[in-house]
Amino acid sequence: MIQLDDLDRAILRLLKEDARLTISEIAEKLDRPESTIHFRIKKLLEKGAIDHYTILLGEDLRPKKTALVVLQAETPIIEDFLERYVNHIMRTLSMISNVLWVAKSGKDTVIALIGGEDDESLTEFIEENIRTLPTLKSVYVYKIDEIKKGEDLIGFLSNV
Amino acid sequence: MIQLDDLDRAILRLLKEDARLTISEIAEKLDRPESTIHFRIKKLLEKGAIDHYTILLGEDLRPKKTALVVLQAETPIIEDFLERYVNHIMRTLSMISNVLWVAKSGKDTVIALIGGEDDESLTEFIEENIRTLPTLKSVYVYKIDEIKKGEDLIGFLSNV
Repeated sequence: MIQLDDLDRAILRLLKEDARLTISEIAEKLDRPESTIHFRIKKLLEKGAIDHYTILLGEDLRPKKTALVVLQAETPIIEDFLERYVNHIMRTLSMISNVLWVAKSGKDTVIALIGGEDDESLTEFIEENIRTLPTLKSVYVYKIDEIKKGEDLIGFLSNV
Repeated sequence: MIQLDDLDRAILRLLKEDARLTISEIAEKLDRPESTIHFRIKKLLEKGAIDHYTILLGEDLRPKKTALVVLQAETPIIEDFLERYVNHIMRTLSMISNVLWVAKSGKDTVIALIGGEDDESLTEFIEENIRTLPTLKSVYVYKIDEIKKGEDLIGFLSNV
């Protein structure tokens, strides 16, 4: 388990906000010597506290509208087939570029975050590409109307 | 609307994977002159194609287990109160550090991604802190057992 102190956490928080901050900018913000900051960041990378540096895509490159869909696979007569059904649904969804996130819950449920340009095209996409997947028992669609925490998630998950 | 060509997209994809790549590393990978890459990145920033640079937290700093909860607020006798109920639920959840993401769907539904150290503590947290929220009509809990696409999402949303 990685042990972090307050200074480590403060550095990580600053880098989360802006990973292009220089050592001297961080040093100034946190009122510590540059050598300390340099050493701490080196350690944070070595310890794996920082996985990697990345960029967030700007708003224009993010889908304007998103929906979370909860898909339940039907239980096949031969129960062993359920895993195949679910894996097939997950694989199919993962290959679609405006499907941003795909996860499995329990034995028979797949959850996906879908992006679209507007409400209409998102609905159309779900009707045509999600509801038509074979072996589905139920589909719940939760249109996302407002994000209160973690809004940048969409910029992180968007593809170019 | 931002117009991107293939080179822009290739640069953005490389930076998503590793935003610490230098101009000359990118130039080499894409077999283009450094001056071109330099110019393009400058333009991508100016156009807002890149929102900002950030870090992903390493695995040790991410919750080991996550669950998506779908909360439906009960309809109050005075209908105008519904928005207050929903806003209160969202505000309360947003303040909790292991609540990673909070969104609203429709008029009465709140969706949240919750993190925990293990299955047991996650269940306990949900029982004690989510199900006990007043004004809830229903709570669905979807434990996330496998992420097929967008796994790094958790590292992005985690707090320190």
